[in-house]
Amino acid sequence: MKGLFITVEGGDGSGKTTAALRLIEKLKKEGYLVTYTREPGGVAIAEQIRDVIVDVNNKEMDAKTEALLYAASRRQHLVEKVLPTLEKGGIVICDRFIDSSLVYQGIGRGLGVKEVYEMNLFATENVLPDLTVFFDVKPEIALKRVMSDDEREVNRLDLESLDFHQKVYDGYLAICETFKDRIKKIDASLDKDGVYQQLESLVEGQLCKIKNS
Amino acid sequence: MKGLFITVEGGDGSGKTTAALRLIEKLKKEGYLVTYTREPGGVAIAEQIRDVIVDVNNKEMDAKTEALLYAASRRQHLVEKVLPTLEKGGIVICDRFIDSSLVYQGIGRGLGVKEVYEMNLFATENVLPDLTVFFDVKPEIALKRVMSDDEREVNRLDLESLDFHQKVYDGYLAICETFKDRIKKIDASLDKDGVYQQLESLVEGQLCKIKNS
Repeated sequence: MKGLFITVEGGDGSGKTTAALRLIEKLKKEGYLVTYTREPGGVAIAEQIRDVIVDVNNKEMDAKTEALLYAASRRQHLVEKVLPTLEKGGIVICDRFIDSSLVYQGIGRGLGVKEVYEMNLFATENVLPDLTVFFDVKPEIALKRVMSDDEREVNRLDLESLDFHQKVYDGYLAICETFKDRIKKIDASLDKDGVYQQLESLVEGQLCKIKNS
Repeated sequence: MKGLFITVEGGDGSGKTTAALRLIEKLKKEGYLVTYTREPGGVAIAEQIRDVIVDVNNKEMDAKTEALLYAASRRQHLVEKVLPTLEKGGIVICDRFIDSSLVYQGIGRGLGVKEVYEMNLFATENVLPDLTVFFDVKPEIALKRVMSDDEREVNRLDLESLDFHQKVYDGYLAICETFKDRIKKIDASLDKDGVYQQLESLVEGQLCKIKNS
């Protein structure tokens, strides 16, 4: 696969979106072909699937149904939005990807990391990020950021118990260990500049891949 | 798992639905708890997922997205409709199940039988039919039946080329071989009574499972 596929992961309030968007601007100025995206990413079929997942009437939805729907949405988003940029040799930064499913469905819903991973590999046809950056910050700090950000709408997940956020955080630490060659942690408890610089430095370490191809 | 889970498979015009419904009536008269169903089976979430699959605007749908959506719909239908009857020790006859995905997506769309099978085992949580009956009839005979049945609405699949139907038929023969312990073939070129009697005899051979439990 040509191009460079980066994903950013972490709980809400970890600062991943802010840092990723800033890096995208920099890479764009440097002349790279770049795409910032997050599922379902404006892809019509992926949006339709997402609508089924988030429909508040679907209280009977089984956890495996949900995991399969996320994978279906991921597949379509990958094919329509991620792969076209990679095939042109560009850089894609995707806000959440397979690892979010491992943490939220595999660990959070108890479906098992291995099971959810293998099912997702069917969906991604073994396409994995060249690099995944985990924004490591303790949930109590991340939540304080979310709550003190006036511009940010508080969403349903923010209101989950601290226990839930702690479980997600522990889940991320576990999969960082499982996939340590692919996932790199950065200290996301620092201020915005501090967080950004770590992301920039990790991604710059990968740019040789497209420069040399 | 208590209960008895039977699936019927075969191309359109193979007579599987007619025979299954007749058998359901007989088993009901004999006092068994029985459910006849076919995906999405009136399960609201499964219907919503099916709507995404069959939406004629979704021309961009990738074959793997489609396979994942079928599996998601299957999962929800299984949980809400099939398992409740089995857990009560009843008999479920399901018109098409995992094998239809193996044939239509795995072989028809070229995704691979093994890949589609493993992804579907995630969906069914390794629940497989106690018995699958394949209604074996050459596609040219099945199509003649479909076309001469005034009461039956001709659907999109019926209008596919004979080549397509032949490919599906060959696909079924291949998976009958792969799963020969589970899938039993019956001669579906006979008349309705002849076809029915073979199904009845195969299912009766399984009734001891619930009688003895």
